[in-house]
Amino acid sequence: MSGILYVIGTGPGSPDQMTPEALKAVADSNAFFGYFPYVDRLNLKPHQRKIASDNREELARARAALELAASGERVCMVSGGDPGVFAMAAAVCEAIEAGPKEWKAIDLVITPGVTAMLAVAARIGAPLGHDFCAISLSDNLKPWDVITRRLRLMAEAGMVMAFYNPISKARPWQLGAAFDILRECLPPTVPVIFGRAAGRPDEAMLVMPLGEADANRADMATCVIVGTAETRIVSRPGKPDLVYSPRFLAGDSK
Amino acid sequence: MSGILYVIGTGPGSPDQMTPEALKAVADSNAFFGYFPYVDRLNLKPHQRKIASDNREELARARAALELAASGERVCMVSGGDPGVFAMAAAVCEAIEAGPKEWKAIDLVITPGVTAMLAVAARIGAPLGHDFCAISLSDNLKPWDVITRRLRLMAEAGMVMAFYNPISKARPWQLGAAFDILRECLPPTVPVIFGRAAGRPDEAMLVMPLGEADANRADMATCVIVGTAETRIVSRPGKPDLVYSPRFLAGDSK
Repeated sequence: MSGILYVIGTGPGSPDQMTPEALKAVADSNAFFGYFPYVDRLNLKPHQRKIASDNREELARARAALELAASGERVCMVSGGDPGVFAMAAAVCEAIEAGPKEWKAIDLVITPGVTAMLAVAARIGAPLGHDFCAISLSDNLKPWDVITRRLRLMAEAGMVMAFYNPISKARPWQLGAAFDILRECLPPTVPVIFGRAAGRPDEAMLVMPLGEADANRADMATCVIVGTAETRIVSRPGKPDLVYSPRFLAGDSK
Repeated sequence: MSGILYVIGTGPGSPDQMTPEALKAVADSNAFFGYFPYVDRLNLKPHQRKIASDNREELARARAALELAASGERVCMVSGGDPGVFAMAAAVCEAIEAGPKEWKAIDLVITPGVTAMLAVAARIGAPLGHDFCAISLSDNLKPWDVITRRLRLMAEAGMVMAFYNPISKARPWQLGAAFDILRECLPPTVPVIFGRAAGRPDEAMLVMPLGEADANRADMATCVIVGTAETRIVSRPGKPDLVYSPRFLAGDSK
C-alpha cells in the first residue's frame, strides 16, 4: 500500500497567486508538512492535519512526510513560492534517493508555483527581462567562498542576480558582504531592488543604487534583485518608478 | 482619460497552472494583444477583442497596446509562462520609456506566472534545487559571442542552466553549439533535460547525459535544463527517473 506525496508551492503569499493545481493538491491531502507560516496560509478543513515545523529541519521533514505517504496516507508538503527553488522539492528527492525502497514507489507529484523573484519583478517592471540567475546567500548549505566566487562570475557575465535567503538573525553579514563584492565589479549606479513580501498586505518595494545599497533594508521576507549596467529606471509622474533590463544587448557590452 | 494595461502570464499552458490574478485581469479587459497561440489559450467572451500577432513583433505589439490603453481602453497583453522572463513585460517597459508622456500615466499591472523552467523542473524532480540561471539562446537580441562567454562563465561557476528559446527554424544551430561549448567545460555525465510542453497534453520529458545530448531533440516548445557535476538521477522501479540538484555543496567542489 503506497500513498501519494504532493510537493506544492503556495506562491509568494497572495491567494490570488496560488495555482488551481496546488489548490487541488491541498483538497486531495489529509496531512500537511511544512514551515508553519506557509502551512498557515492554507484554509484547511477539520480533518486535515497540520504537522508544521521549524524552517531549518528540511531533511527530517521530508523523511517524516515520505514515511507517512509510504503508509498509504495522502500527504502534502508545503513550500512558499515554488517548491523547486531553494525549497522542499530537492530535500524530498534527496530523502527518496537515500531512503528505503518503499519511498521510491510513492506517487510523487510536484506542482510549480510563482517564485519570489518573479513576483518582485512583476511589481517593479521587468528587471529579469534579460539573462538572470538565482543565488541563495545562505552559507548553511555551501561555503561562503563558493558564493563569493559565483557573485564575481555572475557580474563578469553581465547577469541580473536574484538573491534568496539574503539575511537572517543567524546570518546577519552575508548580504552586506555580497554588496561589497559587487561594488568592486559593477558600476555604483546599478539598480538594486529590495522586494519585500510581494503580493502580501505588508508588501514594500525599494530601489537603491548599488553604491548606496544598504543590507539593513532587507529581512527574511525580502528577495533582492541586482540589475546590470544596462538595467534602466523609468520615472513616471505620480506613479512608482519602473525598473527593467532591456531585451537587447549590443555587441561591445558585457 | 487613461486606461489600464495588464501584462499577464498564462503559465506553461495548462489552465490549472494559471493564477487567479491573471484570470481576473482577463475578465477585466476588453482588448487582447499577444502571440496568437498564447491568446488562443484564453476563453474570451464575444465582446473581448483579440489582436494577436506574430512572435517576432514584440516592440510594435507593445506600442499598439499602450496606444489603445492611453485612449482609455482596458487592455491585456498576454505572454506564455511569466511575462517578465524573456517575454512581453520588458518590451512594454521599453516602449513606455521611449514613448509619449501619456504612456507613463497608464495604469500598468504586471501579474507573474509559472515560467517554463519551473514547470519542467517540477515534472522531473528538482534540477533547479541549487543556484541556477536562465539564458536565452536567441542571438536575435544579443551577439552570439556574449552567449558563448556566458555559457563558459556559468559552467565555471557551477550553476544549473535553463535555456529559453533553444532552437527555431531561423536559429537551427545555436543549441548544438551551446552543447559543444559545455562539453569542453563540464563532465559528459551531467544530466540534460529536454522539457517539452510541460503541463500540456503533448508534454514530453527526456533526460540525456551531456556527452550525448542531441540538439535535434528540442523544438520551440522545449525548455532545456543543464545540470551540474553534482546533479543526481534517481531510478525508481516502474516510475520515471527523478533528477535533482542537491541543496548541499561541499567546500572542495565548484
